[in-house]
This record gives sequence, structure tokens and C-alpha cells, in this order.
Amino acid sequence: MKRQAWLFISLFSAMAMLTYPAAKAADSNFSDIKAEIIAQHDESVQRLQDWIRLPSIAAMDLGYPEGPEYMVRLLKEAGFQQAEIIPTDGKPGVFATLDAGAEKTVGVYFMYDVKQFDPREWSSPPLEAAIVDKPGLGKVVMGRGAVNQKGPETAFLAALHAIRAAGRVMPVNLVLIAEGEEEIGSPHIGQIVNRPDVQSALAGTIGVFMPFASQDREGLVTVNLGAKGVIEVQLIASGEKWGLGPGKDVHSSLKAMIDSPTWHLVHALNTLVSADGNTITIDDYPQPLPLSAEQKAMIAEAASRRNEAKMKEQLSTKQWIDDLSFVEAMERLVSQPTVNIEGLVGGYTGPGGKTVLPHRAEAKLDLRLVPDMTAEAALSALRKHLVNHGFGDIEVIFSGGYDPTSTPLSAPLIQAQISALKQAEIDPVLWPRLAGSYPGYIFTGSPLNLASGHYGLGHGSGAHAPDEYFVIESYNPEVQGWDGAVLSYVEYLYELAK
Amino acid sequence: MKRQAWLFISLFSAMAMLTYPAAKAADSNFSDIKAEIIAQHDESVQRLQDWIRLPSIAAMDLGYPEGPEYMVRLLKEAGFQQAEIIPTDGKPGVFATLDAGAEKTVGVYFMYDVKQFDPREWSSPPLEAAIVDKPGLGKVVMGRGAVNQKGPETAFLAALHAIRAAGRVMPVNLVLIAEGEEEIGSPHIGQIVNRPDVQSALAGTIGVFMPFASQDREGLVTVNLGAKGVIEVQLIASGEKWGLGPGKDVHSSLKAMIDSPTWHLVHALNTLVSADGNTITIDDYPQPLPLSAEQKAMIAEAASRRNEAKMKEQLSTKQWIDDLSFVEAMERLVSQPTVNIEGLVGGYTGPGGKTVLPHRAEAKLDLRLVPDMTAEAALSALRKHLVNHGFGDIEVIFSGGYDPTSTPLSAPLIQAQISALKQAEIDPVLWPRLAGSYPGYIFTGSPLNLASGHYGLGHGSGAHAPDEYFVIESYNPEVQGWDGAVLSYVEYLYELAK
Repeated sequence: MKRQAWLFISLFSAMAMLTYPAAKAADSNFSDIKAEIIAQHDESVQRLQDWIRLPSIAAMDLGYPEGPEYMVRLLKEAGFQQAEIIPTDGKPGVFATLDAGAEKTVGVYFMYDVKQFDPREWSSPPLEAAIVDKPGLGKVVMGRGAVNQKGPETAFLAALHAIRAAGRVMPVNLVLIAEGEEEIGSPHIGQIVNRPDVQSALAGTIGVFMPFASQDREGLVTVNLGAKGVIEVQLIASGEKWGLGPGKDVHSSLKAMIDSPTWHLVHALNTLVSADGNTITIDDYPQPLPLSAEQKAMIAEAASRRNEAKMKEQLSTKQWIDDLSFVEAMERLVSQPTVNIEGLVGGYTGPGGKTVLPHRAEAKLDLRLVPDMTAEAALSALRKHLVNHGFGDIEVIFSGGYDPTSTPLSAPLIQAQISALKQAEIDPVLWPRLAGSYPGYIFTGSPLNLASGHYGLGHGSGAHAPDEYFVIESYNPEVQGWDGAVLSYVEYLYELAK
Repeated sequence: MKRQAWLFISLFSAMAMLTYPAAKAADSNFSDIKAEIIAQHDESVQRLQDWIRLPSIAAMDLGYPEGPEYMVRLLKEAGFQQAEIIPTDGKPGVFATLDAGAEKTVGVYFMYDVKQFDPREWSSPPLEAAIVDKPGLGKVVMGRGAVNQKGPETAFLAALHAIRAAGRVMPVNLVLIAEGEEEIGSPHIGQIVNRPDVQSALAGTIGVFMPFASQDREGLVTVNLGAKGVIEVQLIASGEKWGLGPGKDVHSSLKAMIDSPTWHLVHALNTLVSADGNTITIDDYPQPLPLSAEQKAMIAEAASRRNEAKMKEQLSTKQWIDDLSFVEAMERLVSQPTVNIEGLVGGYTGPGGKTVLPHRAEAKLDLRLVPDMTAEAALSALRKHLVNHGFGDIEVIFSGGYDPTSTPLSAPLIQAQISALKQAEIDPVLWPRLAGSYPGYIFTGSPLNLASGHYGLGHGSGAHAPDEYFVIESYNPEVQGWDGAVLSYVEYLYELAK
């Protein structure tokens, strides 16, 4: 069935139910499973809303151990025979398996944590998970984690519920890893994945995928062949560590005779990038690999299919760096490492001014990495650079990060995505590398050397921003709503089983 | 009477009362007034505590119109026959006169506003104005405004109460100006002082002084011959104004193709001062006058009498800029303009990190000025510099400021201070210029061309910082407590009358 038609049925599910065949016989169109998806619609959307209302935020030490306990419960309810909490030096992970006696086994990566939020910036409370009408888009669940990543993950779980309710046996076995520190850079994912029983279970998979809302506002689907790596660091200048400047905030008039740790930080930052802020100038910084001809072709094709004007509008951005063309900007997005300032905080930060000479100032940075850069080498270069330039006193607090990850187009995990999409008459955009990051390196790197990817229909936005949402009922026939997203996982699992 | 003895009496006031002469005859030792100061001690300390509990903070629009109304009430209770609120385009001022039929008239400058505070940083709540024991120092009133400036101002008012209670006629007439925007740089003081009736009243004074806790922890008294000027500005970089970068916070991975207003701000800041943060590099910036031989001699004398080690300890500072000697650091403090970062705020400022590319970043600066720099010229140079260096899009929000102010040592207002102190057997340190700022220029500049200064015994600290205090009962016989501070204003007023 063409995806557009299914969406129509899904949207008017009550009516659709009447016209559906009563028999739940297995067929290649999954009509039996579709019927269950529709029947379970309210229940599975409610499951997403309930989960959003229980946030786990590692940076705030909020929602532990409730988060991993709830994760275990969700997995067991979805049919995982085994699901256990795995302690780490940070927040716990979860390891779960679903043995269907199938020939093939597929790995799944979940994160149960979400990003911080400021409720004052939201039009609907971030923990209310209300169904909100977004004109031109549809009815959406709005809340922290809606798209990153609880929405797609809950849709995947709903697929398992529906397959079981249709009386079918799961087409593949599943090995699932969930972590609770993705949003702080997955500092302890190694302690979960490297456990011998987890390693052994993962080694038997054909690869690991992460449920993902791959459709943009216009319905375009992207298949990603990897993701950038990242390190997050806080650079802290203080009188205490510097030995110059005050050890506490003092009156600003004393600047005439006392050094300023804040100026020290500004000058340190200034050495990290070029005057336009765009070229990294850290000494001996790892260099990116150039794009291959295949990657350039993918980007050119993607650029021709994406809507630059809409993207600029969505990002509230008038022009790209260096006034690049769209395809050049896309190449830069895929291929270039970044040094970004996430936040600056020092001294008085309230309204107006306050005449203090602050004893401490902090810059929060994230540095995105591309192959073959490693998180370790990038961090080490940053530290050495600061020392060499006279900023060795500035504390570099590494809060998390990991290497970039890549998976070849030819990997069965990826080919199954392309097949499933083609059967739904969707022609995906192939994309060499997500500009965002996820810890796929733990699967694609040694010793597992697995394929890793993202999959799932549906649309959402606002990750790490206010008003994060995931579409439940879509007004655009090209964009899947909840039921279409759930179905996409059904189709993918059956395709993986082939 | 030597000040130390009076302090002793004051500390044990109950006992002292017994030994005081019953008659309240006028005498040169002010024994009648002293008795009233002691009798009114509790009431006048209570007056300070009550006032601290009613903060007016212009930057937060807090405590208006209660602040000026309370100011009027305090002045009328202290004997000013006339006290009225003067509206301005900002917060109102107060103009008050006390006509004693005396030969001489003295101007007084008050501020009724206080600095912002963060209660979490205080050991005693900033609006509680509790009496707290500070080991080695004494019983103090701790609260916002205790020393800056409600403590000294209330002590001055207590002097007026005591003189009246002693049945005496005030030795001088008073013209008092109070403003409610000192802490945001007195942007509208001109609208108060330049009113014809105020100008005319002030023109008849021998100068204007501000009540001030002039004693340091060891009791050393400083007579100031002026103060630096200041401008406070907020520099704001934003995607909206720049035309580059995002108009809202977007995901940090987009740094690869979208410019960063935060980096833009960092690079702009970097052009304002030398790499060590200490030499101003703003193009065509007004230059300071060199110190005169007389000023250098004053500083050398002051340095020899001040305790460098204690000062460093109090400021939590191990060494001065460029490892200068104490006298060199003091010369720098008096003679050099500054560009200080009071605060940095941009993007995510909470705990840990958050992967955003912020659309806006702000630096709060204060620039101290010395003769013959003007606030206008400094601000104009800063603006031009930013434009010339490619940062013309950065908003420069001028929140307030004024020119430096100077008064000659020979001015009767200053000579009366020295005489009063010498009679109390105190040998003051003469100081060319306060490193802090107050809007004395409005009196010392054209057309008034008056003398202006600070006066008052007593000690306090923590202006603009947590745990601000003013000493009520001093454990150190060299440092005056409340009653000694009150008496110092009595002595000064009688000295000014001569």
C-alpha cells in the first residue's frame, strides 16, 4: 500500500476500522498488524505522554533511578523476555533481549534521558506532553523528549506491541541497549556495551539502529550513513587557579590593580578560532578527511531535493557561513569539525549591570568531530593548545563525548532501510553523516565493527530547544503521523529478517 | 576628647551614661550631643535596619515610589523643613533644605538606592539587616546598603537628631539632594540638580559632601579629593542585528554552516584590551592625565600607612597586575582608566552543557575614567572602535555613567575634614581620587564648580558584594562604631560652620 493511502486510513481510523477485513491473517501488506496499530493508537500515544512526564536529565541528576526502572518496564511490556538495569559509574544503562527464535538478530540503541529545558520558553508545558495543534503540520505531542528520542522509541515499541497483538512471531530477535547519559555525551556507555554478556549479544547482531524521526516538514526521508563525534567541555578561568585576579568577586574599580579572569578567558577563547569564528585555530588539531566523490554526489543530490528557503526560515538564518551556496553549506555541515560556544557565564548575569570584577568565568563548548578525528585527540590538542598559549591555568572540564561513526551504504542494516522505503514508494535522500552526534562509535568501532544507523518515518523538531514536538496526526499526506511511524518499524523489522 | 576614649564610652554606654554630666550645656566637646547620641542609639540603629528592609533597586524597578517617599520621611524627621520628590525620566530624586538661619550652607548628596543581591550568597539575609557578630571586628548590621550608603547616611541623620535633641540650633544650613539611580550610573541626576531652584540652592553652598564610612579595618581614615568617572555599557551581539547567525537558538551541530554571534562578541571584546587584559586598546581612546608630584607623594604616604598584606587578604588576591609593588599598584588604581567585564551571559548558562548555537550573547562592561576623560568621549570612542573593527552590528547599550570629579585639597570642605579629624587625634591619609565612582561631577563641573567630597568615621565593607556590613559596636578601639560615626558628622558640621 502506498504510504499516502495508509496515512489517510490512519487519520480517519474509526472509519477505517469499519472497512478493514475482520480476519487478521498474515499478509505482505501487514493488514493484520495495521489493524492492531490502529486499535492500539490511543494506548501507545498515552504511553509516549506518560514517558515524557517522567524526565531523566543527567546534567541535573533528575529522574534516576525512576528513568531506568521505567525503561525496563516499557521493554518488558513490549515483549522483551529479559531486561535489566546495568549500573555504571554514572547513570545506569539497560540491557534487554527479545528472543523470537528467528534467524537474524538486530541491535537497537535507545536513550532514556532528555535535554534540560526552561519551562518559561515553552508555549505548552514541557512535561505536560499535551496534544497541540500546529497549523500546517498537524496534531503533535509537545514536550521535552517528544522527538529526541522518546517519540520514535515509543513508536518502535508500539510496533512490537502490534506485531504481538496480531498473533505473529517477531521476525527478528532483538538486543537492546538503553543509556541515560546521551545528553551529556554518553560518558559511561562503554561500561554498558563492553560488559561481556552485552558484547556477546551484540556481536551476534547484523547491526544496531536507533529509532528516529527521519522525515522533514515536507516528508522527505533521509538515510544517514553515520554521525559526527563530539566533545563537550567547560573552560573555567578563575582567580583561584590562575594565581592572578581575585579569589572572590570584588568591586569593579579594582580592575585598575587586579587582573581579570574573565578577560583571561576571553583571550583564551579568541585563540581557538579565526576572527570570523569559523576556522579552528587550535594548534595541531586533528584534520578532517576530505569528502569522497560518492559523498559529494549524495550531498549534491540531497541539496537539490531539500528546500533551502524553508530550511533558512526554520533556522531563522538569512545566510550560511561565508555566504556559501546551499550545496557548499551542506558539504561544510557534513565534512567540517566545529568549535561552538554553547554558553558564556561569568560574574553578574542579571538585568542591567553590576560593578563587580568577577573571580570566575566559564565558557561551555561543544566540538563536533568528523572521521578520522577522535575525541581523545581533539581533547588532548585543546588542552595542549591552552597550555602553549599561556592559558594552562584554565580548567578544561570534559563532560562527555565520543568519536564520529560511519557505516557503509552496502551494509544490510542500511540496504534494508532503502528497501523498506522503496516498498512504501518513498525515495530517500542518502546522507553521508549526521551533523549531530550519537554514540554509534561504540558499535561501529573495534571490537564490534557493526553497522549502525537511524530509522523511522514520522516528523518532529525542537530537539534541545523549546516547543519540541512529534507529529501524531499529520495534515500533510507526505508526512507520516503516529500510526505511520509505528508501521515503518514493522516494515523495517520484516525487511531486516529477509 | 580622644576618639578612642569616646569609643570606650560608647561601647559601654549604659555605664557611660551614669558618669556623664547631667547638664546638657553646649561645650566644645559636644558632651550634650554625645549624651543624646547614646540615648538615641537603639532608635537610630533601628532606623538603619528599617531602611535596609526597604530596598530600592533601579535595575530591577524595585522599591519605587516607596524609596523616595521613605527618603522624604527620613529627611523631614531629621529636621529638614522642606523635602520633596523630584520626578525625572527615570527614578525620582529628592530635594530637601534645612534652614537654620546659619551663616554657611553645606550641600549633602545622598543615594537612596542599593545594588542588586543574590540572597543565596549571603550568610545573613540581605534584607533582614540583622545584627551579626564579626569576629575581630565587632557587632555589625549586615544587609544590602549597610555601608553603600544607608549606614553612613543614617548616621549623618542621627547626628541631626542628636543636635536637635540637645536643644542646639544647627550650626549650618543644609541643602540635600538624594537620587535613586546611583547604582545604575545616575543617568538622570542632571534632571534633579539642574532644576533652577535646586541649582540656586546648591550655588549658595560651600560644597557638597556625601556621608561615607572612611575607616578601613584598622581604623585608618582616608580623605578623598575626587573620584573616577564611569560608564556602564552592555555589548550585545545577536543574529538579528548582525544579519549573520541564527535569529533564535538552534542545534549546535549547525555551527558548521551558521555563524555564531557569541564568537563575534568574543572577538569584539578581544580588541578592547591587550592580551593580558590590562591595557586599553580602543582606538583613539581618551588618555589619562599623568599624576602630579603632589598626588604621587600622597599615594606614597598612603601606601606606607596601609597594610598591603591585609588588603590582599581582604581582596583574596595574591599579586597585583604585572606584579607591581604596592605603591605602583596604588598609583595605577588612582591614575588609570579601566575596561572591566562585569558579566558575560550567552546561550546556555545552567549546570553542565547544552548543545545549542546561541543567537545572542552579552557582555556587561564598566569603564572607569580619570581626568580629563569624559564619559561622552569614552563612549563615543568605544562605539567608533567597534564600527571600525567590523563590529558595528553589536549593540552598545549605555546604561549610565558620568565624568570623573576632583576637588582641591585647599577647598574649605576638605580642610574642615582635616581639622575635624585632627581634633579627634586622627591623622588621615590623603588620597587623590577614589577608584570607585559617584556623580560628584554634577557639583564640581560647570556651572556649579563646587567642592565635593566624602566624610564620616566608621567602617563597613561588601559594597556590591555579599555580606555587606557596617560596624555598630567595634572591637577595635581604632575603628569607630555607630555612635562614633554619628559623632563624626556632628564634629564635621561644627567645623564647617567655622
